[in-house]
Amino acid sequence: MSFAEKFHLRIPGPTPIPPRIQQAMAHPMIGHRSGEASRLITECSERLKKIFGTEQHPLLLSSSGTSALEAAVVNTVAPGEEAIVVVTGAFGDRFAKIVEKYGYICHRLDIPWGQACDPELLKSFIEEHPHARAVFFTYCETSTGVLNPIGELSRVVREHSDALVIVDAVSCLGAVPSRMDEWGIDLMVTGSQKALMLPPGLAFAAVSERAWTTIEKNPGPRFYLDLPAYRKNLEKGTTPFTPAVSLLFGLKEALNMLDEEGLENVIKRHELLKEMTRAGIRALGLELMARDQDASPTVTSIHGGAGKWESEELRKALRQLQVVVAGGQQHLKGKIFRIGHMGYCDALDIFTTLSALELALHQTGVPVELGAGVKAAQEVYLTHV
Amino acid sequence: MSFAEKFHLRIPGPTPIPPRIQQAMAHPMIGHRSGEASRLITECSERLKKIFGTEQHPLLLSSSGTSALEAAVVNTVAPGEEAIVVVTGAFGDRFAKIVEKYGYICHRLDIPWGQACDPELLKSFIEEHPHARAVFFTYCETSTGVLNPIGELSRVVREHSDALVIVDAVSCLGAVPSRMDEWGIDLMVTGSQKALMLPPGLAFAAVSERAWTTIEKNPGPRFYLDLPAYRKNLEKGTTPFTPAVSLLFGLKEALNMLDEEGLENVIKRHELLKEMTRAGIRALGLELMARDQDASPTVTSIHGGAGKWESEELRKALRQLQVVVAGGQQHLKGKIFRIGHMGYCDALDIFTTLSALELALHQTGVPVELGAGVKAAQEVYLTHV
Repeated sequence: MSFAEKFHLRIPGPTPIPPRIQQAMAHPMIGHRSGEASRLITECSERLKKIFGTEQHPLLLSSSGTSALEAAVVNTVAPGEEAIVVVTGAFGDRFAKIVEKYGYICHRLDIPWGQACDPELLKSFIEEHPHARAVFFTYCETSTGVLNPIGELSRVVREHSDALVIVDAVSCLGAVPSRMDEWGIDLMVTGSQKALMLPPGLAFAAVSERAWTTIEKNPGPRFYLDLPAYRKNLEKGTTPFTPAVSLLFGLKEALNMLDEEGLENVIKRHELLKEMTRAGIRALGLELMARDQDASPTVTSIHGGAGKWESEELRKALRQLQVVVAGGQQHLKGKIFRIGHMGYCDALDIFTTLSALELALHQTGVPVELGAGVKAAQEVYLTHV
Repeated sequence: MSFAEKFHLRIPGPTPIPPRIQQAMAHPMIGHRSGEASRLITECSERLKKIFGTEQHPLLLSSSGTSALEAAVVNTVAPGEEAIVVVTGAFGDRFAKIVEKYGYICHRLDIPWGQACDPELLKSFIEEHPHARAVFFTYCETSTGVLNPIGELSRVVREHSDALVIVDAVSCLGAVPSRMDEWGIDLMVTGSQKALMLPPGLAFAAVSERAWTTIEKNPGPRFYLDLPAYRKNLEKGTTPFTPAVSLLFGLKEALNMLDEEGLENVIKRHELLKEMTRAGIRALGLELMARDQDASPTVTSIHGGAGKWESEELRKALRQLQVVVAGGQQHLKGKIFRIGHMGYCDALDIFTTLSALELALHQTGVPVELGAGVKAAQEVYLTHV
């Protein structure tokens, strides 16, 4: 009983594309060196500033999020130098892998998956590694649904070290507060396919003045990911290499949508979606992976039921019901599932997801009170709206 | 007298997107690790094989053409090693710049822009540099409209050296014959936004068995562009990093279109478009940059009139008439203009372009017989169809 293409994509990215954005992306192709392309590039960068919370112009890369992580590494750390990577999950781990792949010295601060990084712990770690040139963080750790207290962590670094503060904000920027300049963040990157409601294929990087000094002097090899080339070209309204033009048309429309709703409201909406999801999950007797104070407004991770139920079986039952959620990554494979609630997502989507989850639990033999999750989410909704 | 968006994009890429492909790209977003994504990735790679002319599975990169050029360099050449780069224009120059940026030893064989590389000259150059580990070529040099005799050049390398043969086929693959395996090419790359009729944002790389041996052992640093990671993931029907999903949906439809026309017919169509364009340009008394035997079926470069007319002024007049052509790159800026006739382009597009060009020449004060270019192109058309 279903239409093949009428499914609900509730993974933590790629996220569903609003029809307005689909339509914008169908704009006839234009020359990438035309005046129209220049205006598009310049406007997108200008309007991304407030999403990052910076006076710097975000750079536009045509590639997916990982390329921006790599750009952050190879532009700030030079051969022979040391870096600290705070690893709170699979994407912190990816930062560490990139640093190691380039043969740079990597000091990993491993935090148990499902927890945020504690500022006190960070402080000691920084003091143990005074030669680190940069500290790498994950704002929202997609693999666990944890939002690190990035403002506070950045402050700790700035107070106790000269290291650059680098932040992967791929799975949350545009859905959470970001005051990059005020918080003292030196380089922040994100991708198109999460809260920005676009298909994958674009990545963005904003760089502080302080970081540019380091980056411009960095002799480490890079070409497609050479950020100074992007900066120099952006000043002329262009990109060093052919940009993903259709996605830029989509980006402009995504920025229109964020402006119309108002960034403050967008952030509040994501807070509400998080609260609703968590209340629903709790009401169904399932276990949330992140504590309330660590939970991301963009993705919620749910622990397996320790014998009561099996997450991959549950995901299959949900897929049958046309709801797609994500499984666990690395050692969490088969142990958790994750619900994405960022971007083009509203309260009704949470009711839909929870109602399908209730059915799927029931169908896989897990005792569940039908409607209880939805009811809890509705109650949260009523107190907020 | 015009509709703002009803213009004719006749630059050598990005090229116009067929409505069918636009529609395919508007497919609802899917999970990048879903079964549907796996089937899409596997099918696209399988069907790209015949476009490359190889039994190897082309790898799918989510980034633009230059990233594939960089991938070709950093995967085949290791720190301290030597490479030969045949430079016939701006894109050969880009290969050389990448090699140099990484600090590898670069032997440039510079050919005057507008000419193809002569196999005899290549032979001597290879003998002068016996330690080169790879030789880099540009199949179609977009900046001049020259198609290098890549089969013959590859044969010369294979007969006189153990170096790998690397080919940038960005601005021609899908419009020209390619027998990668038969010609002994080790690594060939292309991009989405040229003859493949897609927006920019995808790049493809096919690698010979012989090259894999070198690539797997190469200790040089790379992460997003690490080809072995793409190969390993492709075997499981996936990509190492989030792919540009919407472009993959478009790619499948582009491959349908190429299959329906038949690759042989696609290649013949491009030959015809080239002949028509060149006949029209000659009939208008303008000077073609490439000799007949060196001319690419995808792009035609026209020299400035040595005082008779100025290419940037002409381009502006054409833009007013809703036809967009490209200017010259590097030292050819202002001296030439280039007409792209690849991908979603047919005979009527050439008439349109030539008729506008005749008007533009007239409007900028260049003596021209109106209709003469169109007539010459029509005559070519009649002899071929």
